[in-house]
This record gives sequence, structure tokens and C-alpha cells, in this order.
Amino acid sequence: MKIARFDHQGQLGYGILDEETNELVKLYGDPLYVGFETTEERISVDEVQILAPFIPRSKVIAFGRNYAAHAAEHGTTVPEDPMMFLKPNTSVIGPDAPIILPPQSEQVEHEVELAVVIGHIARNVPAEDASKVIFGYTVSNDVTARDLQRSDGQWSRAKGFDSFCPTGPFIETDFDPSEGAVLCRVNGELRQEGDLNLMERGVGELIEYASSVFTLLPGDILLTGTPAGVGPLNHGDVVECEIEGLGVLRNPVIGSKK
Amino acid sequence: MKIARFDHQGQLGYGILDEETNELVKLYGDPLYVGFETTEERISVDEVQILAPFIPRSKVIAFGRNYAAHAAEHGTTVPEDPMMFLKPNTSVIGPDAPIILPPQSEQVEHEVELAVVIGHIARNVPAEDASKVIFGYTVSNDVTARDLQRSDGQWSRAKGFDSFCPTGPFIETDFDPSEGAVLCRVNGELRQEGDLNLMERGVGELIEYASSVFTLLPGDILLTGTPAGVGPLNHGDVVECEIEGLGVLRNPVIGSKK
Repeated sequence: MKIARFDHQGQLGYGILDEETNELVKLYGDPLYVGFETTEERISVDEVQILAPFIPRSKVIAFGRNYAAHAAEHGTTVPEDPMMFLKPNTSVIGPDAPIILPPQSEQVEHEVELAVVIGHIARNVPAEDASKVIFGYTVSNDVTARDLQRSDGQWSRAKGFDSFCPTGPFIETDFDPSEGAVLCRVNGELRQEGDLNLMERGVGELIEYASSVFTLLPGDILLTGTPAGVGPLNHGDVVECEIEGLGVLRNPVIGSKK
Repeated sequence: MKIARFDHQGQLGYGILDEETNELVKLYGDPLYVGFETTEERISVDEVQILAPFIPRSKVIAFGRNYAAHAAEHGTTVPEDPMMFLKPNTSVIGPDAPIILPPQSEQVEHEVELAVVIGHIARNVPAEDASKVIFGYTVSNDVTARDLQRSDGQWSRAKGFDSFCPTGPFIETDFDPSEGAVLCRVNGELRQEGDLNLMERGVGELIEYASSVFTLLPGDILLTGTPAGVGPLNHGDVVECEIEGLGVLRNPVIGSKK
């Protein structure tokens, strides 16, 4: 099922998407903590603002160069060990919220990625047990200031600006991450086109690696790398990230370059 | 004044340190959010477990190579732009909690640092206004797996393991960070000895830089770099980080190397 977090006339809530009626069946609370008990209330998706589908309370754990074709477009290869980095929870925004171009960068780029939403406190999770700690899956855009990524060495600034982690629209709790189209369009033009079956390291392996370092917490997400075709975002653009079965994450781009 | 967070017989609370009696005057709630109203209750420091002095809800923002002598001991210089990186909130522990050596590393090292505790939601703070967003100051140990720092490229793993950000014991709300001894001892042996007046970039400049990238939140901390003398930690060691006027942060070291 697909879970949404939403703002309905100033009231925040969670709901299960009824895809036939395009309505949200409202839940009693945050399903990450209190499960899926539904209320009698139904609200049309058209009447709410869909938010990032979880409250990020701790970490966004991301992996670089996990698709060979993307590594190649930057003149590199898939690293021998996973290349792991952190984005702050303050970078997370939801669908339709603007990606804000910072004045420090001349080259901000999109990176569509499968996001794994963690549902349990977890440490040292073997790959084969990863499904036990996964709450569901959604779409993220690992927005990156490419010029600062090159010049800074550490990527915390280039990938950590406010608004640089659009995520949503839904968390799909029943999803097979082993295959499915991964697409990014800018102003309707197809920029990235890959498939989850091209990921070098699978979700289980990435969770094993991350959880050997950090305690994972409910609402942490893992970004699993981007396929080839990354490219620039400019003021006025609309960027759409899509993963087959997970829906479309759409964000406008605002702000001026320096 | 000095603020502590503590565990008293399973009850968590906050208090103001009475240095004459070595008692904590208990507060009504988290002073980051509800201020400094005191209760009638006093508890001896000896009867409580002192915790990290704040709940880290979002970011630990850290700066590398901010003392020339430390940069030199690694064969480098102070970078032209601040070298900023993130540690996850899951790395934060309090006084007396163990630093756990991970099996992935053969070389875990101490780095005593001044930590600035943020008290307000803030973005784009000019250096001259930094004091308006600072709640206080405390001591941190930016524990680092030096071998992984060298081999990984990105520092998120090397500096992000659980327990790699000991912090405390108190938050001092009245503190001048422009000078003061910065010391680290291991098993009583002096390892690091510097002074805050040797920081290349001051607290105001670091807050201006960080807040031009991230929204700062109450309970975020900024680690301001370490002086020269970093060195190894081994199973059974006791490491003491001290900053003049802020007290001593003491942690045992446990766990075996691989």
C-alpha cells in the first residue's frame, strides 16, 4: 500500500492511498510508530498538500556511484567499497516544494534515486535480514551542487543545502526493489533513464554496510545511487523523478545563480 | 551558568550546576525550548548520571583543519575555504559512556574540540550576529577512524560511528570562546595542548558559513576543529578532553580491533 503524509487545511496527517478513488484513508497517527489503524475519514488527494512521506528525525544516508553508467559519465568506476555520505535532515522537502538554487553554486544537478525508508531501530543488520527493518520505498532527488562537490572535497555542503533532498510522494510498503524503471525529466524532457536492476549493490548490502557504522532509526532513509544522465537545473525548471511503481516526485526550481 | 542533562534513578531532567555545593538545581524542562525556570528540587551531581547536555535532533556540523599546527601534523595547511563535514546525531554520547572501537578500523584517534550549541532556528546568520543564535558552549571529542578517513574519501564513516561524538559535561551559557586552554589526556598523559586563540576561523565565521548552507536547529552543534597532538585510542584507555572554563569530558574506550 501507499502511505502519504499531508497537510489538510493546516492539519497534518497520514493516510493510505485508495488508487481507485484517488482518496486518502486517514490514519490515527504516524504509521512508523503506531501502525496502520484507519479512521473513517477520507480526503481527496486533490484537497491536500502532499508532504515528504515521513518526518526525518536523524539521517539521510546516501551512496555514490552505485550505477556503472553514472560513474562512467564522471570518468570513474564503481568503488571497491560502498561510497557512503550523509545529507542532513534539514535538506528534505516534499513534492511541489521548491528546490532553491544557492548563490554559492553555478551548477546544481538532479539525481533520481530509490529511497529506502527505515522502520526500526537497527544495528549490524545482515543483508538477508534487511527486509525486517525496511518500512517501505519512495523516490528521492539527491540534488547536488556539482561545482562545489568537485571543489570542496567533502560533499556535505554540495549535497546538504536546504531543499536538496526532495522525497515522495508516497511510501510504498509492498515493493520489489530488484527491478523497475528509474526516470528523471526536466520540463518534460527525459534526462535520466535507468533501471533498479543496474544497481551494483542491492538494498540489502547497503543496509548491512550502513548499519555496521550507524544505528539506523525510524525515518532514516538510504539513497541508493543514481543512474546515468545527471544534468543541470535552472530557475524556472520543473524536475520530475519517477520510479516504476512508486509514482512521480515533481519539484519546481527557483532562485538565481550568483 | 552551567546546564546539565541527567538521569536520576531513571528519570531524565535538566539542571543548573551550583558549583559551590556540587548540586544541580532542577529545571522544569528542556532549557533549549522552555527557558531556565527552576524547581525547588536539588540533586547532588554524585547521585546522577550526567548525559550529553542536549538531545541532538538534527546535525553535528564539524570543521576540519581549523588549527594550523594540527593541519601541519597531517602534512597539510589550513584550507582556503572552511572544510565542513557532518557527523550523525547517532554518534553523540555523554560523559562516562564508552567510546566503542569498531572492528573496521585499526586506528581510532581522539580530537578535542570546542562545541557550539545552537539555540534557535537560524539561516544566513552574519558572523557579527552569531551570538544571537548560540545557546552555549561545551566540549566534544571528534573521534575519528584515521585509517578509514584516509581510505574512504568521504569522512562520514570514519567520523560517524556510534559513540564517535562524546559531548559534555555541561553547557556553559556565559563563555568567551576567543581564548582558553584546549587539552586532551589519555590515561593521564597529556596528548593535545592548544588554545582557542589559535583557531584560524572563529565561531562567528563558522556559524555564518554553516548557516549559509543549512538551516540550524536548536540542539545542533558545531565542532570547531582540533589542535595538534591527535593520537590513538586503545581498549581500556580513558580519554579526557578539557577546555578551560567548560570542564572535563571523560570517556572510557572499549572494544577490540579486528
